[in-house]
Formats: sequence, structure tokens, C-alpha cells
Amino acid sequence: MKKENINIHKNLKIIGLVAKNGENIAVIEEFFASRGIEILVEKNSAKKIGKKGFSLDEICKKTNFIISLGGDGTLISTCRQVVGKDVYVLGIHDGTLGFLTDIKMNDMQSFFTQFFAGIYEIERPLMLDVVFKKNGGKNIKRVAFNDVVITRNTISSMSKVDTYLNGKYFNTYYGDGVIVSSPAGSTAYNMSANGPIIYPLSNVFCITPICSHSLTQRPLVLPNEHELSFKNVDENEVAIVIDGQDVFDMNKFDEVCIHLGNTHANLIRHLNRDYFSVLKEKLHWGHNGGKA
Amino acid sequence: MKKENINIHKNLKIIGLVAKNGENIAVIEEFFASRGIEILVEKNSAKKIGKKGFSLDEICKKTNFIISLGGDGTLISTCRQVVGKDVYVLGIHDGTLGFLTDIKMNDMQSFFTQFFAGIYEIERPLMLDVVFKKNGGKNIKRVAFNDVVITRNTISSMSKVDTYLNGKYFNTYYGDGVIVSSPAGSTAYNMSANGPIIYPLSNVFCITPICSHSLTQRPLVLPNEHELSFKNVDENEVAIVIDGQDVFDMNKFDEVCIHLGNTHANLIRHLNRDYFSVLKEKLHWGHNGGKA
Amino acid sequence: MKKENINIHKNLKIIGLVAKNGENIAVIEEFFASRGIEILVEKNSAKKIGKKGFSLDEICKKTNFIISLGGDGTLISTCRQVVGKDVYVLGIHDGTLGFLTDIKMNDMQSFFTQFFAGIYEIERPLMLDVVFKKNGGKNIKRVAFNDVVITRNTISSMSKVDTYLNGKYFNTYYGDGVIVSSPAGSTAYNMSANGPIIYPLSNVFCITPICSHSLTQRPLVLPNEHELSFKNVDENEVAIVIDGQDVFDMNKFDEVCIHLGNTHANLIRHLNRDYFSVLKEKLHWGHNGGKA
Amino acid sequence: MKKENINIHKNLKIIGLVAKNGENIAVIEEFFASRGIEILVEKNSAKKIGKKGFSLDEICKKTNFIISLGGDGTLISTCRQVVGKDVYVLGIHDGTLGFLTDIKMNDMQSFFTQFFAGIYEIERPLMLDVVFKKNGGKNIKRVAFNDVVITRNTISSMSKVDTYLNGKYFNTYYGDGVIVSSPAGSTAYNMSANGPIIYPLSNVFCITPICSHSLTQRPLVLPNEHELSFKNVDENEVAIVIDGQDVFDMNKFDEVCIHLGNTHANLIRHLNRDYFSVLKEKLHWGHNGGKA
Repeated sequence: MKKENINIHKNLKIIGLVAKNGENIAVIEEFFASRGIEILVEKNSAKKIGKKGFSLDEICKKTNFIISLGGDGTLISTCRQVVGKDVYVLGIHDGTLGFLTDIKMNDMQSFFTQFFAGIYEIERPLMLDVVFKKNGGKNIKRVAFNDVVITRNTISSMSKVDTYLNGKYFNTYYGDGVIVSSPAGSTAYNMSANGPIIYPLSNVFCITPICSHSLTQRPLVLPNEHELSFKNVDENEVAIVIDGQDVFDMNKFDEVCIHLGNTHANLIRHLNRDYFSVLKEKLHWGHNGGKA
Repeated sequence: MKKENINIHKNLKIIGLVAKNGENIAVIEEFFASRGIEILVEKNSAKKIGKKGFSLDEICKKTNFIISLGGDGTLISTCRQVVGKDVYVLGIHDGTLGFLTDIKMNDMQSFFTQFFAGIYEIERPLMLDVVFKKNGGKNIKRVAFNDVVITRNTISSMSKVDTYLNGKYFNTYYGDGVIVSSPAGSTAYNMSANGPIIYPLSNVFCITPICSHSLTQRPLVLPNEHELSFKNVDENEVAIVIDGQDVFDMNKFDEVCIHLGNTHANLIRHLNRDYFSVLKEKLHWGHNGGKA
Repeated sequence: MKKENINIHKNLKIIGLVAKNGENIAVIEEFFASRGIEILVEKNSAKKIGKKGFSLDEICKKTNFIISLGGDGTLISTCRQVVGKDVYVLGIHDGTLGFLTDIKMNDMQSFFTQFFAGIYEIERPLMLDVVFKKNGGKNIKRVAFNDVVITRNTISSMSKVDTYLNGKYFNTYYGDGVIVSSPAGSTAYNMSANGPIIYPLSNVFCITPICSHSLTQRPLVLPNEHELSFKNVDENEVAIVIDGQDVFDMNKFDEVCIHLGNTHANLIRHLNRDYFSVLKEKLHWGHNGGKA
Repeated sequence: MKKENINIHKNLKIIGLVAKNGENIAVIEEFFASRGIEILVEKNSAKKIGKKGFSLDEICKKTNFIISLGGDGTLISTCRQVVGKDVYVLGIHDGTLGFLTDIKMNDMQSFFTQFFAGIYEIERPLMLDVVFKKNGGKNIKRVAFNDVVITRNTISSMSKVDTYLNGKYFNTYYGDGVIVSSPAGSTAYNMSANGPIIYPLSNVFCITPICSHSLTQRPLVLPNEHELSFKNVDENEVAIVIDGQDVFDMNKFDEVCIHLGNTHANLIRHLNRDYFSVLKEKLHWGHNGGKA
């Protein structure tokens, strides 16, 4: 858990904006115009309101502060695109409370009053590093914010993948597939597949079978120094899906290696934001826990 | 994961011995007598062969090396008794392979040939610190190797405990109870209650509900800096069971606090011992994972 | 599913009343007095308002209609006591909606307007027959409305019971215990232990392991013609708990036999009562099922 | 449970044969030639040994006895194709023990000695009736031996289907999908998705969510008189997969209706075949149930 204050709120002249929908873009532009700050709208977001916009690369050259307007999916996509850059992302949601975006449009005023006074935190949840390896070919590298899902490519088949831990064979997953989840991703697909909830700023990650054919397969939590690698050992096609957004064909590679460790996102959070409050609200935990 | 070689194999003149059964005590005494090493048999163990023996305290004054002969339960009990002392424990099993005791009586010869050549490792799995608090009373402190189970005291009732994280209320567990498991304890009761398997040398721990009345309660993995505390909020009696060995009545205390952190066991392991091999053997994981 | 109209609403002069709390007894007496119907309050219920009351046996001699005022637990207890008698039980709740008691105090007026017009249904959920057998001794027979739980007698031990199906050995349950659940009981303890929900008027029952030591044990649904029997095969004490209300020591018997089949409760329900509406309300199923 | 002896072993002159692989076809032909019985090899099976063969329709006109040589998949496919005909299917496996095919090639001699003496049973497991409905179009009808899976059509999306019970809305399944399983199918995909094991000759069926987004969704067991219907309510494509063999696009239909009831398979089994023995062997149940 790294929580620290830095100085991104000082001398802020430009903010980037990625938006899932077009509707609140103007509101945000106006909000910051009155504070003398220019909003650079990302080009796909700008298209939604019939404007031109900027690429994320252009934006990152001019500012290290980006607002993600939408749900957790929009924030995740933004973080993945700016990975490795010294860029800070703030999630604002215009609908459903998310694990990552817990500031409402309506709370913007009060949040930014605090923010410009230096009252905020940076959270750095660890992401997964994914390397697709091919003999004689070039490795492809990606990061996953939530999860890497290794799964059957057609709905009527099963996947069967051999799994190695630090280069040594340790298990074969046979069934619908397997999820490798970052700590922050543990409340996403991982939780639906009976994986544990992991505090998002932990330095462990989880491998969870999806509808395993064998009844003894269970979720396994590993410290960040371990590396998992997967090989397809069946004639069936297997797909690798990163954050539900990027899909790869496993048969094009010899091996896929995944570990938690070197890469993290930079999230701006309100001070004392409480992960467990979100958990309670989303899962109905709490005093009436006795009622189903 | 702390693995390191130290010098406990040098100038070893005395070894302590705790044994679940009496049958192999003489074999071990003989084995070491031929190497000029004296065995001090712990007094309860010695009773099983009609001898007198020594208290663990006495043993720990004379040697920092103890052999635990039996299963994981014997090893856990021994580790809990010598906690805080600079004592190293080696588990030898005479029956079933355990997660903690993976050296067979038959493998003693080959293990000790390596051991006396300095070829071995020390593993330091973290234990749970448990503090029973009572207003106006004295705190009681215990350590748990595997788990602390907070559970209904009578089989026909349910338990309902309020749970605080770092002093802040965050959940109520209503049902058969709740397990707080160390990483090494994750394959014990925790796994039967659908908790995740956690690599034993991780610095996270897990809180897992037992037959929760609410269907949204799930296992939660937390980093070691977090502290959980529990209060009984029901008229029903609630018991606290440490490692299945010590039972406390929760109503005698105001609060029970648990965290992972300051306390660890010192286990002597053969070099390159493989946690995942044991996992595969115990859970039938592996290449034939496709078969139920 | 047997739904049928019979004539218990005709010529009704006397109604029995079992009440969990005293508070609404007078309201019910008054409600029926104005309709010329006398209420016989059961003696333990009457004690709560300082009156004398009647035994259930006496009540059953004078009427075949009993109101259970309270939750599912009160209704279950009443049904078990009048089992085998031609008595019909109506559940009215004064607090929480139950699977079995879905008529509120406030809905009494409208329910009974319909009831006296013959608009109601009888539901006959099957109960479990339980026989405790002892060589050379007399068999003890009980019925279970919800479930028979076979479980460790002390919280720090495990139970190990051999299980026979129609007299033939088929499994050993080792862990916290095992639940044999009637269809109506499937949403009680069985559901907390990961057992399936079974439509309450089905003619199948379910055996569900509680925190099984083995990871391959699963809930098993059996048709009513099958008989299960259990034997304790361990030195640990094992208890048998019927509906969370009656506790037996398994070691006093050679065998405990359970089957679904000959015994049912007679519940009066409002017409078209909808089991699945209760399920939806209790489990938050429905259109917003997409949200956790 | 319908178990009965009929006279299919009498005057048997012709037997049909469906085979997964070609290798044992000749062995079977020879085995029966010596008994004066002609084998009609199904045409796809015959192709594997370079022969011509007969359509299943042709075979069914000449005999009411078919051998399925292969695993459970081959048997299921055969039963689905001859559904509604008065045809009896015997499963012989040449490799792995199946829940449906428990006679080994090596046991053929002893099985048929008994069979021709009239010592065998007929099992009639209920299949699911599936009706695809389209307004203004023709209904399509299918049967499912094991299961009907309603699932997302692309691996990176989710499915969201509204579900009706006897025409009344009762739940929305949001996640990877939902399985409707016959009793015999309960040990297939249903079990991997945490559904209960159901005795195969029961007259109940089960609806089990697959990786549900909501944590309160659970498997639900229903008696055969209930009818489920499903509607896609999302923009995402949803597929319907019958027995892992036939795939339909849900968007081409308004509604899909499923119930257990009118259709069953006719399986020839050796006398006193024991479903629970197979369960024990496949799931490692039994006396050593205490070991993981």
C-alpha cells in the first residue's frame, strides 16, 4: 500500500479527458474553464459530441493529469493506454458506483476544492505484465489492469492448458478456462468464478479456474515474485482475453507468461477513500449481514 | 519468501524431540547416537515410552534444534510452544505426507547427510498474533500457526460477530462462524470452507466465512499491515478456537484482535522443497487434471 | 405439487393459536371474536401474556385449524408437533417475511375475507422421517420439517460418518458434518452450505456436506424412494440436530435412517401464493440481477 | 425410477452399431457373427474403416437394439438421434468409464451371456424438451440428453437473459450464462458450475448459473411439471448449445422453452448396475473420503 501526496495539483493548466459518453463533456469543460484550466478531450471521446479531439499520446505530452469519465471499464482502458508514463488518472462516474471510480459528477465541486488544496491521495495498484512468446519471433508485451483470461475459443468446446510456475510444470487447467487476476481485478470476473476478494493494494495475485472439470481445482493466491506461464496442450483453440478488451489467439504463440510486479497504475483518490465502504455497498455486507 | 542458510547444523551436540507416538523415538535416538548427538525427548512424548523426558523450556535452553515426529498437528503445536525463541523445528512424518512435514522416516538418512553438509533451508511462515482484550483486565496474547476460528459455541445455534478493520466497522458475519487463516493455514480448515489456497510464504492472510447465512459473503485476502477485530453482538455464546487446539469463550472478552505480522515459525526444510508438489499430490492436481 | 381446496373454512367455531411473542395474541382473539370464532391459545404462548392456555393435544381435539404467529421457526415447530393429525396450519408473521409465513398481520383482514369464501390452498410439503436404531433397543422416530444435521459435537473436532444408501455403503463424510434437507428446508442451512435450492413441493431431498475435508464431495439430490443411513465411525462424538430444535447423541444409537416420503405438513396458503416471489425478495433475484 | 425387463433379447437377428473409433468394429462383428447375429454399422462409423454402412433411420427399421461403442458423448448423440423411436441403446466403452457407459469391451462376453438369458434392465432417464419459438415462424423442437446451455456468444462479452417460470418472469441471469440440466446431465457441465449431483432417474431438473455476476444466484432444482423459458434482453449475442453438440443463435428466436417430461432415452444396463459406484470411482468418494 503506497499512499503519498505529490504535487500534480500545482500549476495545473491542462487536463486530459476520456469519456465513455458525450453528455457530460461540456459540463466538465465549463467547470474547469472557470478555473482557468483547459480540457483536452481525447479524440474518440470528442467524436461523440462531433468534435475532433487529441490522441492520448498528444495529451500525455501536455499534461500528467487525465480525467476518466465513465465506469471502471473506461478507467481501466485509460490506465492501460498511459502505462509507463508518469500520468495520473482520476475516475469520475456518471452512473453506477465502481470499485475504481467512486466520485460522482455531483461531487466534483467538493472533490476539486480539496484537490486544489493538496488534499488527495495517489493509489498505485499493481497491474499484471503479460508476455506472449514465440520461438524465433518477437515477444509481445501487454499489461492487464484487472485480469488475463485464458479460455476456450468456441462456446461448445473446453480448454486445456498446462501451467508452469517459475518455469516448472505444476498444474493443468481443463474446463472453461482460467483467470489470472490482479488484486484490483479480484472483484471482477474472478469473484464470479468463486475467486477470493483481495485488497487492491496487496502485492499478491490470484489464479482461479473457471468451471473446472476437476473438482479439486481451487483459487490460488501467489506473491508477486512468482511467474506463471501457460501452454495450450489441446487441439481446441484457446483465446487470451486481457481486461475483457484485447483478444489474442493462443495458438499463435508458444507460451504466455504472466506476473505481477513491475507495472502499476497511478490513480488519484479522495483522501481516506474507503475500499471497504464500496465493498459493503456493492455486496450488501454490513449489519444486516444476517439477512440473505 | 525468506530462504536462507544459517549454521544450526554446526557443532550440533543436542537435539530436542517431540513425538506424537512412541514407536520411532528409539530409532531416532539410535540414529543420532551413532553421530555423537544426544536426543532430549520432550516429557509428554517420553511418557509414551514410559520414560521421564524434559520440558520444552528445558530443551530450548540446551539446543536450538527440535525434531517434530508426527503430522502437521504435532509440528504446529511445537512451533506455537517455542514461539519467540530462536529455535528451529524439523518435521518428520511417520505416516501421511503433510503440507509442513514432508520428510519421511525412511528419508532421514539422506536428509541428514545433506543437512550436516549445510544443504538445507529455513522457512519462516508468518503466524497470526491474537490478542484477547478485556476492559479493566489484562490482555491475553496467543499466536496461531494455521487459523483462528470464531464460531458458535453450541451446535444448534448460529454466531453473529461484528468485525472491524483497523478499528473501523466493516462487516457482520452471521452463520456457523468465520476463519482467520495464516497463509500456511490456508490449506487447512480455510480450504474446506471454500477459502483460497495461499502460498505459505506470502505476507497476506485471509478471512473466510463458514456457512454464511448471507449469500454475498466471500473470502477476503488482506495484507499483513491490516488488523481485524471481532465483537460478539448476539446473545448466543461464541467460541474462539486457535489451531483447533486452544478454545476460548468470547463472552469473557470485549474484543479479539488478530493480525499477521510480527511472529513467524522457523522451519528447517530440505533444499528446493516444493510446496506445489505437495499440493499436487494432496489435491490430485496435474496432467490428469482433466479427470474428475 | 398437491394443491387442492377442502372445506376447513366451513363451520369454523374454534381456532388454535401458537405464538412466538405475546404482543399480537389479543388482536387475533378480537379479530375472530367479532366473527364468532373462539381462539384457543396454546399454553406456552398463553404464558407470555400471563394466561393459562391449552396443550396442543387438547387444541387438536377441538379444531383442525391452527394459526402459527411468528416466523418460519414457530411454524415448523407447530407442524412437527401436530404431525400425523389431520390439522391445518396457517403462518402469520409479525416481522420478517419467511419462506413459509408470507401473510403479514396487516394482511389478515383481506386474507380471511378470501379464506371464508373458500379461496385458499393447501400445500403439503414432504417432511423427512428419521429413525434412530439401537440393537436390542426400541427405535425412536422423529420427523424433520427442514433438515437433519449430523455434525461434530464439539467445536474443535471433526465428524466422520459412514453413509449407506438403501443399505449399501456409498460414502464417508468427513468434516464439519452433513445436512439431509427436505425440499422445503433447502433454503435454510442447506443453502448456507452451498446446497441447491429445491422447489418445496418436489418429491426429492438433498444430502449436502458441511465444510468437507475432501474437495470432491458435493450436494446430492435423491428421489423420495431412497433411504439414507448413517453410522459414526470415529471416536469423536457426533450429534444429530433436527430442525435446529432437537439434539440427539449419535453414540447412543447404532444407526440413524432418514428418508423422505410418508409424512407431510398441511399448510394453508393464500391462492396463487408464489414461492418464487419470496425467493426473489429474499435473494435479491430479478431484473437488477446484473448488479452484485 | 423405472426398471423393467422386456423381451428385446429374444429373436435378436440384427444389431445396429455406432462407433466413435473404427478399431473395435470388427471385434464386435465377429463376436455376434458367431452367435448368428448381423451387425449393421452406422455409415459415419463405417467410414472410419473404409466401409459404407447404413443410416440410423435404416438401422431403426430393421432392429430396436443399437450398440454405442465409445464414451458418454457417443451414447448421448445416438440416443438423441433415435429419440421417439422404440429403440434400445447399450453403451460399451473402450477407454474411460462413463456415467452412462460402464461396460468395458472386455466385459462383453459376460454381459451378453446374461443378456441373452434375459438378465438385464432398461433405464429410462428423462431428457429435456427444447422448443425454439419465433413469432410468425415455425417452432423448432429438439431434445437434450444432458443439458441446454444458454451462454454468451463471444468470449469477451457477458450474456443477460430474462427467465420465466410457467410463463411468469422470475429471474435474470447475467454472467457467462446458465445451464438447464437433466438429472442424468447433472454430473456433466452442471457439476463444474457448482450445480448439485442429481440421481439420474429422478423426475426433477436443475437450472444452474455459470459465473453469475450476482453473488446470490444459486442452482435451483425444479419438478418436471415446470417449464422454463428464456429471452435475450441484451444487445450481446447469446448462443444455445444442446449437449455440447448443436449450437443455435438465440437472436433468431423470440423465446426458448425448456422442460423435463415427455421424452426419455431407453438404455440397456446390466442388472443391478450401480450409479453410486461410478460416482465413487469418478469423484474419489468413499472410505478414504477424509483425504483430500
